[in-house]
Amino acid sequence: MIKYNISDSASMSKTFSESDVYLFAGITGDFNSVHINSEVAKRGIFGERIAHGILVSGLISAVIGMKLPGEGSIYMEQDLKFLKPVKIGDTVTATVRIVEIINEAKGILKLDTIVRNQNEETVIDGYAVVKVPVVKE
Amino acid sequence: MIKYNISDSASMSKTFSESDVYLFAGITGDFNSVHINSEVAKRGIFGERIAHGILVSGLISAVIGMKLPGEGSIYMEQDLKFLKPVKIGDTVTATVRIVEIINEAKGILKLDTIVRNQNEETVIDGYAVVKVPVVKE
Amino acid sequence: MIKYNISDSASMSKTFSESDVYLFAGITGDFNSVHINSEVAKRGIFGERIAHGILVSGLISAVIGMKLPGEGSIYMEQDLKFLKPVKIGDTVTATVRIVEIINEAKGILKLDTIVRNQNEETVIDGYAVVKVPVVKE
Amino acid sequence: MIKYNISDSASMSKTFSESDVYLFAGITGDFNSVHINSEVAKRGIFGERIAHGILVSGLISAVIGMKLPGEGSIYMEQDLKFLKPVKIGDTVTATVRIVEIINEAKGILKLDTIVRNQNEETVIDGYAVVKVPVVKE
Repeated sequence: MIKYNISDSASMSKTFSESDVYLFAGITGDFNSVHINSEVAKRGIFGERIAHGILVSGLISAVIGMKLPGEGSIYMEQDLKFLKPVKIGDTVTATVRIVEIINEAKGILKLDTIVRNQNEETVIDGYAVVKVPVVKE
Repeated sequence: MIKYNISDSASMSKTFSESDVYLFAGITGDFNSVHINSEVAKRGIFGERIAHGILVSGLISAVIGMKLPGEGSIYMEQDLKFLKPVKIGDTVTATVRIVEIINEAKGILKLDTIVRNQNEETVIDGYAVVKVPVVKE
Repeated sequence: MIKYNISDSASMSKTFSESDVYLFAGITGDFNSVHINSEVAKRGIFGERIAHGILVSGLISAVIGMKLPGEGSIYMEQDLKFLKPVKIGDTVTATVRIVEIINEAKGILKLDTIVRNQNEETVIDGYAVVKVPVVKE
Repeated sequence: MIKYNISDSASMSKTFSESDVYLFAGITGDFNSVHINSEVAKRGIFGERIAHGILVSGLISAVIGMKLPGEGSIYMEQDLKFLKPVKIGDTVTATVRIVEIINEAKGILKLDTIVRNQNEETVIDGYAVVKVPVVKE
């Protein structure tokens, strides 16, 4: 038995700062100019430095790890479609929603995972598969 | 015309440290016990604290942003299957390989993206879709 | 009217790492040897480097800001008695408990704030005063 | 015998940056919107993101650990009254002043601890109790 239901959802929000982007560059080694070179970035397609897509996806991981399903869940899969850039200073909200109980006996769930910016534009769309603890009935 | 070919590949390697994991928790808000509480983690399924899956995926982003395709490429999609945990102190290698030219005119490529640990075990398997600059012939 | 009751409580736990201590030293300027000099610290009273007391108190702030009372509360006062050192690698739990409704009309509460280590020893004892939103009846 | 006198005082000043606030959120887990969400914060009571009160208190800890009493002192107690918010970009000065020699034989002192902003407004008022080394006469 699992304690989750279709359509359960949870969110977390954050303004991504320059220091977030620089720390993420520092711990991964992704020093692509679009993230850490304001001179190159302003001549590029986005006109300014943007946050790494994987960094922004970390907010999905935070909702999954902290809220839904939260403690005890195991991350099995994450699919991410990067639809729009997140600029330094943008405030984004990651929302996770249970859309399918893939295997109730094993506690495997499918979640919609969407990140929107302060203008309600979807910046990342995708889904996750997670395993949650199963309680004996 | 694009300057990439099927089977082109590139890699980057890194030992993930406790400070990497703590900084990633700090920039995303993912303070799940499995990452930042050694007492809870040692009683849990993995026996010790592990790196966030999305943090480890950042090494794929680094290869894509820095080496192949590198500067000028736009990240469109990333699919990630988390197969094994990465423990603090593990050394992992992310390898990216071009497997399909989805649309040559638009410069859209599909890449295999695999992360292996120091024991040659695959910890993350997946693929990415990226857009690269197209040069007029 | 407020939605809180005497004895409501909440907790958060964390293993304090070397990088936490170094970052806190870096953002405050408290480079006292007991925190960032292992040679001096091992000859000192604690035998090794310890976390800053105010850093550890940040976990109380986290519980107050994130859980109880959480969003919308204003921090008015915090009293801290530092009873035992927190060494690098110790796992501590901050627990906040409502002990008095000082002024219900203004939404002012008194909280016990206690931090314990992995051996159930109290490392910080104290109290906080916070103001919470008041809902018109 | 102790080498300190009533009214001895010392200060340290710092401009608190966005990265200070984000790092402190990251090492404590205090992601309350008032600190890391500019959209929510601008609709809130302070009109913009503010520094964590405990982070600002870290500057008191720095004066105590670095200047007065400095090396060798042990932090026993800190009382903090948060009187005004510190906004990102504010420059504050923490001043510590010896106001009482509680126990000369044991080297226990009481200090006034005050933090003021660039407009000379007191943002934190409180006191500390510290133990200093006692020198045999």
